[in-house]
Amino acid sequence: MQAIKDSVHDYVELPPVAAELLDTAPVQRLRHIKQLSTVRLVYPSANHTRFEHSIGVAHLAGRALDRLGIDDRRAKGVQAAALLHDVGHGPYGHQTEGIIERRLGRHHDEVGDLLDRGELAATLERHDLEPDEIAALVAGEGELGQIVAGELDVDRMDYLVRDAHHTGVPYGTVDYGRLLAALRFTDGTLVLAEGNVQTAESLLVARALMNATVYRHHVSRIAGAMLERTSERLLDSSDVSAAEFQRFTDAELLAALRNHEETRPMANRIAERNLFKRAVWAEWESVPGEVVAADHADVREFERDIAAKAGVEPEHVLLDTPGEPSIPESSSRVVVNGEIRRLADQSPLVQGLQASQRTQWRLGVYAPEAVTDAVEKAATSVLGLVH
Amino acid sequence: MQAIKDSVHDYVELPPVAAELLDTAPVQRLRHIKQLSTVRLVYPSANHTRFEHSIGVAHLAGRALDRLGIDDRRAKGVQAAALLHDVGHGPYGHQTEGIIERRLGRHHDEVGDLLDRGELAATLERHDLEPDEIAALVAGEGELGQIVAGELDVDRMDYLVRDAHHTGVPYGTVDYGRLLAALRFTDGTLVLAEGNVQTAESLLVARALMNATVYRHHVSRIAGAMLERTSERLLDSSDVSAAEFQRFTDAELLAALRNHEETRPMANRIAERNLFKRAVWAEWESVPGEVVAADHADVREFERDIAAKAGVEPEHVLLDTPGEPSIPESSSRVVVNGEIRRLADQSPLVQGLQASQRTQWRLGVYAPEAVTDAVEKAATSVLGLVH
Amino acid sequence: MQAIKDSVHDYVELPPVAAELLDTAPVQRLRHIKQLSTVRLVYPSANHTRFEHSIGVAHLAGRALDRLGIDDRRAKGVQAAALLHDVGHGPYGHQTEGIIERRLGRHHDEVGDLLDRGELAATLERHDLEPDEIAALVAGEGELGQIVAGELDVDRMDYLVRDAHHTGVPYGTVDYGRLLAALRFTDGTLVLAEGNVQTAESLLVARALMNATVYRHHVSRIAGAMLERTSERLLDSSDVSAAEFQRFTDAELLAALRNHEETRPMANRIAERNLFKRAVWAEWESVPGEVVAADHADVREFERDIAAKAGVEPEHVLLDTPGEPSIPESSSRVVVNGEIRRLADQSPLVQGLQASQRTQWRLGVYAPEAVTDAVEKAATSVLGLVH
Amino acid sequence: MQAIKDSVHDYVELPPVAAELLDTAPVQRLRHIKQLSTVRLVYPSANHTRFEHSIGVAHLAGRALDRLGIDDRRAKGVQAAALLHDVGHGPYGHQTEGIIERRLGRHHDEVGDLLDRGELAATLERHDLEPDEIAALVAGEGELGQIVAGELDVDRMDYLVRDAHHTGVPYGTVDYGRLLAALRFTDGTLVLAEGNVQTAESLLVARALMNATVYRHHVSRIAGAMLERTSERLLDSSDVSAAEFQRFTDAELLAALRNHEETRPMANRIAERNLFKRAVWAEWESVPGEVVAADHADVREFERDIAAKAGVEPEHVLLDTPGEPSIPESSSRVVVNGEIRRLADQSPLVQGLQASQRTQWRLGVYAPEAVTDAVEKAATSVLGLVH
Repeated sequence: MQAIKDSVHDYVELPPVAAELLDTAPVQRLRHIKQLSTVRLVYPSANHTRFEHSIGVAHLAGRALDRLGIDDRRAKGVQAAALLHDVGHGPYGHQTEGIIERRLGRHHDEVGDLLDRGELAATLERHDLEPDEIAALVAGEGELGQIVAGELDVDRMDYLVRDAHHTGVPYGTVDYGRLLAALRFTDGTLVLAEGNVQTAESLLVARALMNATVYRHHVSRIAGAMLERTSERLLDSSDVSAAEFQRFTDAELLAALRNHEETRPMANRIAERNLFKRAVWAEWESVPGEVVAADHADVREFERDIAAKAGVEPEHVLLDTPGEPSIPESSSRVVVNGEIRRLADQSPLVQGLQASQRTQWRLGVYAPEAVTDAVEKAATSVLGLVH
Repeated sequence: MQAIKDSVHDYVELPPVAAELLDTAPVQRLRHIKQLSTVRLVYPSANHTRFEHSIGVAHLAGRALDRLGIDDRRAKGVQAAALLHDVGHGPYGHQTEGIIERRLGRHHDEVGDLLDRGELAATLERHDLEPDEIAALVAGEGELGQIVAGELDVDRMDYLVRDAHHTGVPYGTVDYGRLLAALRFTDGTLVLAEGNVQTAESLLVARALMNATVYRHHVSRIAGAMLERTSERLLDSSDVSAAEFQRFTDAELLAALRNHEETRPMANRIAERNLFKRAVWAEWESVPGEVVAADHADVREFERDIAAKAGVEPEHVLLDTPGEPSIPESSSRVVVNGEIRRLADQSPLVQGLQASQRTQWRLGVYAPEAVTDAVEKAATSVLGLVH
Repeated sequence: MQAIKDSVHDYVELPPVAAELLDTAPVQRLRHIKQLSTVRLVYPSANHTRFEHSIGVAHLAGRALDRLGIDDRRAKGVQAAALLHDVGHGPYGHQTEGIIERRLGRHHDEVGDLLDRGELAATLERHDLEPDEIAALVAGEGELGQIVAGELDVDRMDYLVRDAHHTGVPYGTVDYGRLLAALRFTDGTLVLAEGNVQTAESLLVARALMNATVYRHHVSRIAGAMLERTSERLLDSSDVSAAEFQRFTDAELLAALRNHEETRPMANRIAERNLFKRAVWAEWESVPGEVVAADHADVREFERDIAAKAGVEPEHVLLDTPGEPSIPESSSRVVVNGEIRRLADQSPLVQGLQASQRTQWRLGVYAPEAVTDAVEKAATSVLGLVH
Repeated sequence: MQAIKDSVHDYVELPPVAAELLDTAPVQRLRHIKQLSTVRLVYPSANHTRFEHSIGVAHLAGRALDRLGIDDRRAKGVQAAALLHDVGHGPYGHQTEGIIERRLGRHHDEVGDLLDRGELAATLERHDLEPDEIAALVAGEGELGQIVAGELDVDRMDYLVRDAHHTGVPYGTVDYGRLLAALRFTDGTLVLAEGNVQTAESLLVARALMNATVYRHHVSRIAGAMLERTSERLLDSSDVSAAEFQRFTDAELLAALRNHEETRPMANRIAERNLFKRAVWAEWESVPGEVVAADHADVREFERDIAAKAGVEPEHVLLDTPGEPSIPESSSRVVVNGEIRRLADQSPLVQGLQASQRTQWRLGVYAPEAVTDAVEKAATSVLGLVH
């Protein structure tokens, strides 16, 4: 057992396979992918990375397995998968996953290709683990996959608490000790034991409050939109391939953007926190359904139309539409009176949270400060926003 | 300024009037009234007292006044009231307030009589403060009274965070820095500034989660019911007067109960944590409306009827009915689009919390372990519980 | 396993024997003995008790046993001893241990008599544990006794961290995870493994800083001296026996002092924090050796002489002499270059701390504020203090 | 006032000048300089940056000024200097300061040139502050400069607590509230008020324990030595100038090292944590005085000699000699019996710490794992190490 000091979980001890995986290049790369991408522009101390988060997830997976009484070969696999669950992330994590999906057709939790070769494959095989099997766990497949990726997974337990520790926003401090103690497998489904509706609710509430305050803070959303659009431009106008792109670290992406003439201005704006401002910040009720439902191509077209109407450069209008609000954790399962029930069916609080998501939902149109008035007017007309 | 080291707020500096009030006997008495009465029987480290809580409330009142730009004579009064807001509590705080109200017609925040004489009056007057005016602030009256006692008061900001620190349950850790920064007076009403629906919601959510997990934990409710009933018996069968009773400390009450023959057995049970158990733990839907609405006399009669039917001693049946669920914070005011709105009208989450209160509501009937079966049967019949 | 939520260690799981011991009256009594006796008069949030501390010590003992690879019947005994290690304490813990030793010849860690009868004996025997064997562990005897009571015991790891959490003074937050991980048995001696001189030093430093700031704060020492002297008077002038006395809780002792005419004035002073003040606060160099070495009878005689010379009532002079400074942890053992060495021999820091103890050492003479000048003069002369 | 949420100090409010400086490129650059350079290779969550540290230092400077009663124009200057105190750092902070000093003759706290032009100069002047005056404060000059850079400066109060928060190592959690409250100016010297020897000692002890456990951890030292040597090689063999070099961010330095053929192998080793190992780890007593005193050129020559003797490539031997141990805080001033005294003269603990530094001192020779035996033998002979 190798003991690692962690700011959140104190000493973490990893089993040999996880300790060896830790030293591979694909996992060491996660040291250079920030957990909260552009959130640091709002919360300056949020510089923690997917590397320490991965260690934390492997640790909590170990605790969950202990509680569930699983200590055979499968346990080793789950801890390996927990440690590896984020290796598929591109630079700036969630911020670039749309680009990677559109260009490479790969979701960040599809890691089969990554595990199947090189150091990772060699390390797994040395410990009698099949890369495919681990990839399936990372994708949340099978009974034990639910521990790694599912509504009650250890991933969200770690990130909520870790993000709270590093931003200073207390809402994320869930009682993971209680959550872990309540985990059970019932008919192959990971559930919370009797008497834990409240425990399940606390997880949702923590996530909802962190969403509003941290994860979807408008400054972070603006910087994220700038980064995404300029990354697309880089791929369209330079010789950087999508395959290279997805393996960049945060800093390598920023450097590539600054080294390429067409993306340099936007990259400098991000680096110096000279961000676009909100031209539009519209509530759910005022946005037509087809705008909410717009796909990537539609969004690009709206942007061009707005820019044309406002008389500004096309790259100076960013439309940021978050899609239909949803709460994945609301389908987590709890035992109530001996039956497995969906939390959303059991808890009026969850229903309140779902409605609340809608009141907090905002569509944004961002532009340089000097042109926000013109862009607002054009966007209101192009998108058909209702006052 | 006197600096006091506090486990929650680090160094607290109190203005002269508060520092002098701190040294009076009625405030020093609060060292012996636990903040969470019987909760320590579930959360063993919850031994914090109303004394340090009062210091914390005075501290947060000072910070609120700073933010609101109030630094004249009124500020001094608000900090004095904050420090004194709990001097009216009887032993075991909320656990005995029903008894005191029924017997003396005084609510714990009616402190006029206490402030009007002795050391407290002398200290207040020495600092040019009127006891009556301070009593009014403690009761939440007037514009500034809302800081001390109201839906957005500093009392709840302190106790949520303090109770979290001392129980170890993280749900109470509200972001009071943000709450304080958002306080405004608008037309004489204390509100949260624009953009703080979420901030207001976080306060309610913290309270709701602490209710379910800590404040209304069934073990604490059982011990509380035992304490209340045996306290009534003490007043009915000994020469302890209600006036003396209300000034007891926690330990003095326990000692009085152990020194009196008729209350000794129950007092020993509490002291040694040999508690009654749940014979009935009924959900809202299964309890007839008239049982929910029962007043103190009705409850006593139900208990006698249940005991008779079950063939157990009358004092071995305790009926604990929490009344209609309510969330006082749901009427806190927030500014939305320039208008003051009730949070409950603005936030679907609050509506969810209100519904949730009902699903968590439980009526309890408690009895010694040996007779719970008989009592359950009798109670189901007497109370007309529906399965 | 029963899980208990603790403010310091989060969820604590106790093995069956410890969980059952927890429910016995002698352990429940510890809920009413504060961990830091009179320190709460300086640090108002320091109201934690020997009950939750005992749970914490049992928890850390479990972790130490895990690390040391001990999981047989002996482990059960060590955890039982850890939970019981403080049952021998009188009211106000260390504050009354001198009295109990002088009158009953029993040190607080001699618990053979307590374990040998009643609930404790029955519970231990039900789990195949011998009361005598457990008493020996509490006294630090045998190889495993060192885990419970010794220079590297889990008792001090818990109290340092717990006292820091509840006072708000950060100095006590030792890295107990690291200490536990470094524990080894070498030739029957509990030592810290190679590379841990620093780890051992950190424990001493934490203790030294907590001593100066918390444990030996002069206000707490004054209140402690008042309490001790008036307790002796209670035993001398009332029908309270030493045997009864040692079983009092904190509140029962205070009540007994207030109910007895001769001790009432002092008890009221303590309850209302109307404490004596320092008439003398003398450094090590200015105090003659025979005063430092004075035994209990000598101290009483010095007090009477000072009072007579100052013309004040005898009970109005309290001489508080802490004896020769010492640091028990300095004899803890660490492995250096493969050899077991005493920390004091290895670490110049420890030598510095020892010298530092001497510069912080103070002899106090306390008296009511009105007479401190007279008492100072008299004490300087009677004790032969050098300026 | 702009409020920033910080993981350590909660809400930080900065005065206008500091808020504007925050948005300049030289301060935003600090987001990309990690506070603890290579320490993250040992403590994976230590990814905090000099940006949030600078905000923290500006905050504590504000609190210190409050306590000292300074609220005029000078206060604004001190807070500006506090925010800017680290803008002179090169990439990887202290790790490259030797290089920058040797090549540019500039120490990291000589920031006159940086403040004298561009955005920083403009911002300062807009607020009526002279760049030169601020540069003097950053260098610790003048009475108020002691708040920013001196034995009792707010810089170390922030970094100790912040490094503890982000590494998880508790030793750094100093009681800065107490330190700030004890600050006084006496005859132009910043001192701690009477009764604070202990407070001063706690600062030194925290620093000493963090040194041993965190700042001088051997893995961090090895990576630091690798980084430094390969950076020198970059400057010697590429067209990167020292002037460019000093303005790199951490990531830009790593990228430059990886893009240059001669430095690529070492850069990859650092990025993938494939570090050199200790061939020699020698105690103070076994190292000849002239080796301790060796200057940069001597060290290079020793390395070449060792490599030649061991038959390994010259760049595969790194000699890391930390120079004479010293504790700058030991000359901090405290008031004792009305006199200002140097802490080192007053506190035997400081003397112990100084001696302790020597026992912890280690000279290292690092090399690739495969050749450590050969290098050890050669180094022992070349350096004349005594066993």
